[in-house]
Amino acid sequence: MALIILAHPDFEKSFANKTIIEEVKKSSLNVSIRDISGLYPDYKIDPIAEQRALEEHETIVFQYPFYWYNMPAILKQWFDVVFEYQFAYGSRGDKLKGKNFIPSFTVGAPEHGYKTLAEHHFRINEFCKNMEQTAYYTQMNYIDPIYFHGTSLTAGHTVEEVTAKAKDHAKKLIASLKVLE
Amino acid sequence: MALIILAHPDFEKSFANKTIIEEVKKSSLNVSIRDISGLYPDYKIDPIAEQRALEEHETIVFQYPFYWYNMPAILKQWFDVVFEYQFAYGSRGDKLKGKNFIPSFTVGAPEHGYKTLAEHHFRINEFCKNMEQTAYYTQMNYIDPIYFHGTSLTAGHTVEEVTAKAKDHAKKLIASLKVLE
Repeated sequence: MALIILAHPDFEKSFANKTIIEEVKKSSLNVSIRDISGLYPDYKIDPIAEQRALEEHETIVFQYPFYWYNMPAILKQWFDVVFEYQFAYGSRGDKLKGKNFIPSFTVGAPEHGYKTLAEHHFRINEFCKNMEQTAYYTQMNYIDPIYFHGTSLTAGHTVEEVTAKAKDHAKKLIASLKVLE
Repeated sequence: MALIILAHPDFEKSFANKTIIEEVKKSSLNVSIRDISGLYPDYKIDPIAEQRALEEHETIVFQYPFYWYNMPAILKQWFDVVFEYQFAYGSRGDKLKGKNFIPSFTVGAPEHGYKTLAEHHFRINEFCKNMEQTAYYTQMNYIDPIYFHGTSLTAGHTVEEVTAKAKDHAKKLIASLKVLE
């Protein structure tokens, strides 16, 4: 039912995204996972294979770490290559119409910085408008992002803390997918 | 003085970005141009080479086509790889401090769609907050983007029309760079 587009350039070394994926796999949900960094290390994404996977699912989850206030490059390349004219948009481009679009990501820095007067100046949602409008333009059903803050171990967060938050995140994602199932 | 980070995945086939680059080259400005798609077709960006180029210039222009309400993947990868901890940010990460940061891009669709009630729903600036905050976080001087609409030939714009607009865009960019020189 749900397709997870996993876009992590270094998934094996990840704590947060790996825990989320492991928890989803352990759940009773019927999900397919496409690790696009693993599938396409040279960034040469196969649009046909990706479009076929999209057509087979009603809900698409984008799972990734938030880098520089945006998605990782591999996910941006995926949109640029896969969301083609007359597939995702255009007079006959309705193949994604009505499908659910769920951004699900992790943010390295703590939450308090994402305020106008704080060091990151903008709310997380203000950085998601490109995702949101991509969903609208392709007639998908945009669902507000699921995310949590504080995954950066160098910033003093512990593995235990990150793992606990990632499990909590996975619970929310699983609950959201169960409603849509 | 100025460094142009040219991020176009198919520059040879481009009209708009190519015209802008040609006009800048014809000007009396002292600019270096790094075609990062050409330099790194496999996306394996060399952070040292890019950081050295940044250190040698006071103004950095990011020249690219706007794809899916965002920068192309090659430019996102460039930020993720080049704007490293203790280079671009962190306790000793002040190598970009005070440098000018100018987004300069082209938008395929016409301007009237980028309004709340129109098909793209958001103003262009609302899609640039990731660029803007990247500049702030690295202590760079963010300059409002230079851009124009209507480069898509399939949407009915003619080559002559796009070329004329690109020349006008180049004039604005050159004028802006002359002020900063």
